[in-house]
Amino acid sequence: MKNDFHKPKKLTLIGLGLMGGSLGAALKKNNWCETIVGYSRNPESLKQALELGCIDQAEPDLITAVKDADMIVLCVPVLTIENILKTIRPALKASAIITDVASVKNYVVKIAEKIFGTMPENFVPAHPIAGSEKSGVQATQANLYQHHKVILTPLAHTNAHAMKQVTAMWQSVGAQVTQMEVAHHDEVLAATSHLPHLIAFSLVDTLAGEADRQEIFDYAAGGFRDFTRIAASDPIMWRDVFLTNKVAALQVLDHFLTDLNQLRSAIEQEQGEELLTTFTRAKVARDQFSRVLEQRKNQNPSF
Amino acid sequence: MKNDFHKPKKLTLIGLGLMGGSLGAALKKNNWCETIVGYSRNPESLKQALELGCIDQAEPDLITAVKDADMIVLCVPVLTIENILKTIRPALKASAIITDVASVKNYVVKIAEKIFGTMPENFVPAHPIAGSEKSGVQATQANLYQHHKVILTPLAHTNAHAMKQVTAMWQSVGAQVTQMEVAHHDEVLAATSHLPHLIAFSLVDTLAGEADRQEIFDYAAGGFRDFTRIAASDPIMWRDVFLTNKVAALQVLDHFLTDLNQLRSAIEQEQGEELLTTFTRAKVARDQFSRVLEQRKNQNPSF
Repeated sequence: MKNDFHKPKKLTLIGLGLMGGSLGAALKKNNWCETIVGYSRNPESLKQALELGCIDQAEPDLITAVKDADMIVLCVPVLTIENILKTIRPALKASAIITDVASVKNYVVKIAEKIFGTMPENFVPAHPIAGSEKSGVQATQANLYQHHKVILTPLAHTNAHAMKQVTAMWQSVGAQVTQMEVAHHDEVLAATSHLPHLIAFSLVDTLAGEADRQEIFDYAAGGFRDFTRIAASDPIMWRDVFLTNKVAALQVLDHFLTDLNQLRSAIEQEQGEELLTTFTRAKVARDQFSRVLEQRKNQNPSF
Repeated sequence: MKNDFHKPKKLTLIGLGLMGGSLGAALKKNNWCETIVGYSRNPESLKQALELGCIDQAEPDLITAVKDADMIVLCVPVLTIENILKTIRPALKASAIITDVASVKNYVVKIAEKIFGTMPENFVPAHPIAGSEKSGVQATQANLYQHHKVILTPLAHTNAHAMKQVTAMWQSVGAQVTQMEVAHHDEVLAATSHLPHLIAFSLVDTLAGEADRQEIFDYAAGGFRDFTRIAASDPIMWRDVFLTNKVAALQVLDHFLTDLNQLRSAIEQEQGEELLTTFTRAKVARDQFSRVLEQRKNQNPSF
């Protein structure tokens, strides 16, 4: 793979929040490309990204930002991608490689097809499975992607060289690159990420609306703290996820609602055996997951 | 308060899991009473509790364990309390102070009333807001209760001396003792603790039943790990909680289900504004909670 890799002269980050800022900081650290240009529509983010060492050059004009770029990484909330692609399309050089970090992949492919007529062979849809409940460029962590998975969801005609460049970029920041079918990605992520976020937002909002709200938060312990941490995530990013991964999100949400309603009946009818069976099954699955996490941690102490 | 405190000669822990074991270890550390006797129906737990320094004396016979005890702390799953009280009642000395660590309080009061005719004035219902997803005596931590709240839910006729002794016991292990009405405790805890546990168990069980279960867990990141940690909690303890705090648990669960179904409709009908409003409201509440946690941590670095 190393022989095929060409160090990009100009890499442009579009969007300088947690994801874009952290990627820039990590790429700059290992000197992976000659120049990292950062675009944001927010002048304050541009300024901070420069100060925090996430980019080499701040560019407030989108067209100028992508002109002559060898690689372009879209790091904006997913519903923003459409306008970005429309704007940059005429300014892209033919060999430019495009990739993104969005949590949904089918929507990104469909939008690119809409704007380019067909999915450009140099557009590699990607999703780094990393993040934080903290958002914005000030939350940047150069090691955000280290030992985390990045899922590429190429189409049949996606260019092999573009795949290699995007793979090399993520590997250079310590990530582990894997591949998945577009639709399968959206289903798996709906379950493992989108549904938990929806539930956490919903629960915190419900409890904040209770009459004894203050005491509920006052008497919350470590379990509640961990359980609700993701409810502090970026609301715009998550609105976009649910608007663009509606089918898969509703499918797994409905499974969850069916099962939770069954537990509700078990409580109402005082069916201790059913509660015990479900809780035990969940504990066994979660303990198994803990052991996998432990193994990953042993392999990568900084995981 | 110090003048009123009498160092107990014999304190008996009934049940030697995480809660009882940790309390014993902490009390022994600061030499709070002369002798700590531990009872468990599980010989292995008795052996381990002795080895781990949670108790001074292991007693496999319940009657002998409570005989001459000045204080008795019930550290068993809540549905086990009835049989314990029935058995020990004839063996208790008149001045013995009883307390417990159960997550539900109304049920404990009702059971005590049933067995003693009226709630004994020396029985102080209590609930330490501390725990872990790990269970059993091997999970014992002598600092489990440090900087954690303990809620006492006395009745009008609860004895003042008994209150002081139980308060002193918890303060000696670093806990902060507060008081609440019995019914109010059960409502607040249903929201802040019982509901999150039910949701975590339910979600993990749902995902473990999905066809792509393996990938769902493989691609889970830190958010999922934290969100589901409490699903590894003790199934028997939690079955008992939902069987004995049914009304309050169902009430807050129904609020949650109503709100979650509303979010479901918003996704289905692609109502971006409603999603954004709810997510933002949740984020504001969670960020506020984070700031309170930070303050607590600044006051008590080991929190």
